[in-house]
Amino acid sequence: MSDIHTVAVLLSGKPPVSGRVTVRGWLRSKRDSKAGISFLAVHDGSSFHAVQAVVPNTLANYESEVLALTTGCAVIVSGELVASQGKGQSVEIQATSVEVVGVVDDPETYPIAKKRHTFEYLRSQAHLRPRTNTFGAISRVRSTMANAIHNFFHDDGFQWVNTPIITGSDCEGAGELFRVSTLDLTNLPLTPQGTVDYAQDFFSGESFLTVSGQLELESYCLAMSKVYTFGPTFRAENSHTSRHLAEFWMVEPEVAFADLDENARLAEQLLKYVIGAVLDAREDDMAFFQQHIDEGLIPRLRGVLDSPFERMDYSEAIEVLKSSDETFEFPVEWGLDLASEHERYLTEKYIGRPLVVVNYPAEIKAFYMRLNDDGRTVAAMDVLAPGMGEIIGGSQREERLDVLDARMDEALHEELWWYRDLRRYGTVPHAGFGLGFERLLNYVTGMENVRDAIPFPRTPGHSVF
Amino acid sequence: MSDIHTVAVLLSGKPPVSGRVTVRGWLRSKRDSKAGISFLAVHDGSSFHAVQAVVPNTLANYESEVLALTTGCAVIVSGELVASQGKGQSVEIQATSVEVVGVVDDPETYPIAKKRHTFEYLRSQAHLRPRTNTFGAISRVRSTMANAIHNFFHDDGFQWVNTPIITGSDCEGAGELFRVSTLDLTNLPLTPQGTVDYAQDFFSGESFLTVSGQLELESYCLAMSKVYTFGPTFRAENSHTSRHLAEFWMVEPEVAFADLDENARLAEQLLKYVIGAVLDAREDDMAFFQQHIDEGLIPRLRGVLDSPFERMDYSEAIEVLKSSDETFEFPVEWGLDLASEHERYLTEKYIGRPLVVVNYPAEIKAFYMRLNDDGRTVAAMDVLAPGMGEIIGGSQREERLDVLDARMDEALHEELWWYRDLRRYGTVPHAGFGLGFERLLNYVTGMENVRDAIPFPRTPGHSVF
Repeated sequence: MSDIHTVAVLLSGKPPVSGRVTVRGWLRSKRDSKAGISFLAVHDGSSFHAVQAVVPNTLANYESEVLALTTGCAVIVSGELVASQGKGQSVEIQATSVEVVGVVDDPETYPIAKKRHTFEYLRSQAHLRPRTNTFGAISRVRSTMANAIHNFFHDDGFQWVNTPIITGSDCEGAGELFRVSTLDLTNLPLTPQGTVDYAQDFFSGESFLTVSGQLELESYCLAMSKVYTFGPTFRAENSHTSRHLAEFWMVEPEVAFADLDENARLAEQLLKYVIGAVLDAREDDMAFFQQHIDEGLIPRLRGVLDSPFERMDYSEAIEVLKSSDETFEFPVEWGLDLASEHERYLTEKYIGRPLVVVNYPAEIKAFYMRLNDDGRTVAAMDVLAPGMGEIIGGSQREERLDVLDARMDEALHEELWWYRDLRRYGTVPHAGFGLGFERLLNYVTGMENVRDAIPFPRTPGHSVF
Repeated sequence: MSDIHTVAVLLSGKPPVSGRVTVRGWLRSKRDSKAGISFLAVHDGSSFHAVQAVVPNTLANYESEVLALTTGCAVIVSGELVASQGKGQSVEIQATSVEVVGVVDDPETYPIAKKRHTFEYLRSQAHLRPRTNTFGAISRVRSTMANAIHNFFHDDGFQWVNTPIITGSDCEGAGELFRVSTLDLTNLPLTPQGTVDYAQDFFSGESFLTVSGQLELESYCLAMSKVYTFGPTFRAENSHTSRHLAEFWMVEPEVAFADLDENARLAEQLLKYVIGAVLDAREDDMAFFQQHIDEGLIPRLRGVLDSPFERMDYSEAIEVLKSSDETFEFPVEWGLDLASEHERYLTEKYIGRPLVVVNYPAEIKAFYMRLNDDGRTVAAMDVLAPGMGEIIGGSQREERLDVLDARMDEALHEELWWYRDLRRYGTVPHAGFGLGFERLLNYVTGMENVRDAIPFPRTPGHSVF
C-alpha cells in the first residue's frame, strides 16, 4: 500500500506532488460529472478542509460502489497526489482505487445529511455533530486551546494538580451542589432521630461534586509555589441560559508570593498566549468562524492580543458608570455587584479594550479573598473582555489567619480546619483565578451557546449519551 | 530587589555565580553552628532539592527571628550566589537578608514536623503532605507524566476530547456506579406506582458518574480519527486494596482505521515515551525513589524502555501457565480470566519483559470488543509489565452492527441507540485502550498504594478535604 497520510498532511504541501498516497476518512460530499468522473471530498478530522479525490469510471467498482456513495460513507482512497486544476485546493488525488469501508444506512434519514441544521437540533445528535463543519472546527480549536493552556503553564514552571471531583465539603457556597451517593433511595437508612443516615453512605458522610478546586489547590500552592488545575466542575443550578452548564471545565492557577497585580498580569499573559496559539495553529478553522459565525471575530481577538489590559478600581468603575449617559437595567451603586451590561459598557465603550476591575466590596465577595487595608474592599479582580464581559475572576487570598477567621462562620471554621492549617504553618501571600474553559472557547470561536462548546453538554433535563 | 529565582533555576547553574539573587520558599531544615552561622535549607517545590542559605549572625534579625525559625517557616532570602564549600550542593546563597514571611504556629505540634511519618498517617494530612520529600517528588512526577501524555498525543495529531463526567447511562457494566442527584432525600418524589420519580431529578432521569469515556469517545473517533480522553472516572466499589480508588484519572485513546496490532503498538509507544520523559526531566526525584522507595526501580524502567514488547495469544498464555512448574492460587483454564499472579508470572518470569496478551475469550470480555473470526475470542489486549502485571487494557471495537447487536442485551440495545448509530453511518474499524493514570504513576515511582498517587484520594469512608 502507498503511504497513508492525514488530510492535513496532504494539504500541507509536505508529501511530494506526483507521489502515491492513501487517505482514509469520510465523504463530506460527492459530485458525479457527466463525463464519467466523480469528485469525492474526503475529510478525516485533521483539517477543516477535505481533500478532493478525482475518481474515473475506469475503476472496477465505479458503477457498483462509487456512484452509490453518499455523505458520511467511510472510504480508503489511493492514488497519485497531483497539483489541482480546480479552484479552492492546491492538490488533489487522482484515484486509482476507492475502497468502501462503511456505508450510510438509509441516506435519506441520516440525521446530519448534507443541509443546514440548527445548533439546537445538532445538540440532539451530539454523537454525530463532530462530523459537521462547525463542530469539527470547535473540536479542533478546543483541543488546541487546551493544549496551549497546558503548555503555557508547564513552560512557566507550573505543576498540574488534579484536585478532587468528589468532596465532603458543602460550604464554599459557589453554587448549588450535586449529591454523590450510593444509598438505596427505596430503602434509605435513617438515624434514630429519623434523618438520613449518611454515615452509611459510601464515603461515611454527605458528599458532593466539586464547584471549584481552589481551596484544595491552595494546599499544593503552599508547597509547590506555582500550580494549576484544569478539570471538570459542577453547578446544580436550574439555569437555562446560553452561558450555563451543569458540568463544565475550569482552569485555576494559584501562585505563592503573588499579589493581585501579579495575578492580573498572569491572567493577561495566559489569555494572550492561548488566543495567539489558536490563531497560529488553527487558521483554517478560525477563517470559518470569521466567515460563518462572527464577522468581527478575528479583529476582536487581534485587538485583545495587541492591547495592554487596563486596570480600574471597582470604586472608579462605579463612578464611571454613574456618570455615563447609558441607560442600565440594573442599578449602579457602590456595594452592588456589576451586572453584565455594566461590565460590557466598561470594557467595550468606555475603555475599548480588556479591562481588569479590582478591589471589590468585601460584602459581595467570597470569604477567602484578601481584605484590603481600607477594611471594606477585598483584593478581587474580574477580567472583562470586549464582546464577552467577565472572562476571568480571581483574587489574592487571605493569608492571615485572624482576618480569615473573622470572615468565616462557625460551619466553615469547623469544616475547613485543613484550610486554616495552611495559614498556621508557613503562610505566604498568594493569588489565583478561575477561567471557564467553555466560555473562553465561545469567546475564541464566536459561538454563542456554551452547550456548543463542550462535546456532551449537561443541562437541566439533559444527561443523555 | 535582586533577581528572584526558583530553587530549580538556582541549582541549574544558569544564574551567574557571584550574582545577587533572591529565593522565596519554605524551610526544609535549619542548622545553627556555634560559630554564629545558620544554614537554612530552602525549598519551593520546583526541585527535589533545597538550596542552602548561609546566614551570618551579623543580620539585624538574626537573634530575634532567624534563630527562631523552624521547619515549614516561609522566608524570602536574598544574598550572593556562590560556589558551595559544603558537600552535596554546587552553589549556596551567602545571605544578606532573611525576611520571615510566615512562621509555624507551635512547631511541636506541626503535623509534619521533620521526622519519619508513615504514608498512612500522611494521608490524614493530605493538605500538608506535598511539603514532604516523598509527596513533593510524586507531585512533580505526576505533573511531568501528565504533560508527557498530552504532548505524546498532541504531537501525533490526536485531539483531546472531554467526554462527560455525568451520564444517564448505567449499563456499560464496568463497575458499580455513583448516583448524581439533587433530589431531596428527606422528601423523595414518588411515581404513582410508588417508585422514586427520577423524572423530577435534575436531569429528568437517573444519572451517574462515568466509569469510562470510551463509548462517547468513539463518536469523536469516527469524526476526528485520532482522539483521547484524560479525565476522572469513578467506581463505587467497596474495595479496600492498594490498587483501588473510587475516583481516579484515566487516559483513553481511540484510533479510527486501527486494528489490535496498531493498538498494541500505540500502547507500547505511549508507555515508552512517558517513562522516557520522566527519567529525562525528573532525574532528581527519580534518584530519590530509587534510593528510598524501590531499589530496582530505574533498572526496571530502563528495561521497559529498551525492550520490544512481546505478543502472545491468550490461548498460548493458558498453555504456558498450565505447563509451568509454578503453583498458582487461582485456577488456569481456557475461558477463565488471568489473575494477577498469572500475569506477573508471564511477564516477569516467562518472558522477562513487557508482554501484550491478545485475543481473549469473548465470554469474559465486554460487548463492544470485536469478535474474531474464530467466533469465540475477541480482539482484546492486556499490556502486562514486570513488577506490575496489567497496566493497560484495550481492544479493537466491534464495528459491525449485526455482530454488535448480537452481543448486546435489550437494555443496552435501547440505551445505546446513539452508539449503534456509529455503526450505521460510515462505520470503520477502530481500536483503543485505557490506562489508569495513578497505577502508571505508582509503576514509575515505585510507590505501592494508589492512595499516594493522587493528591486527595477518595476511597470508602474518605471524602474529606
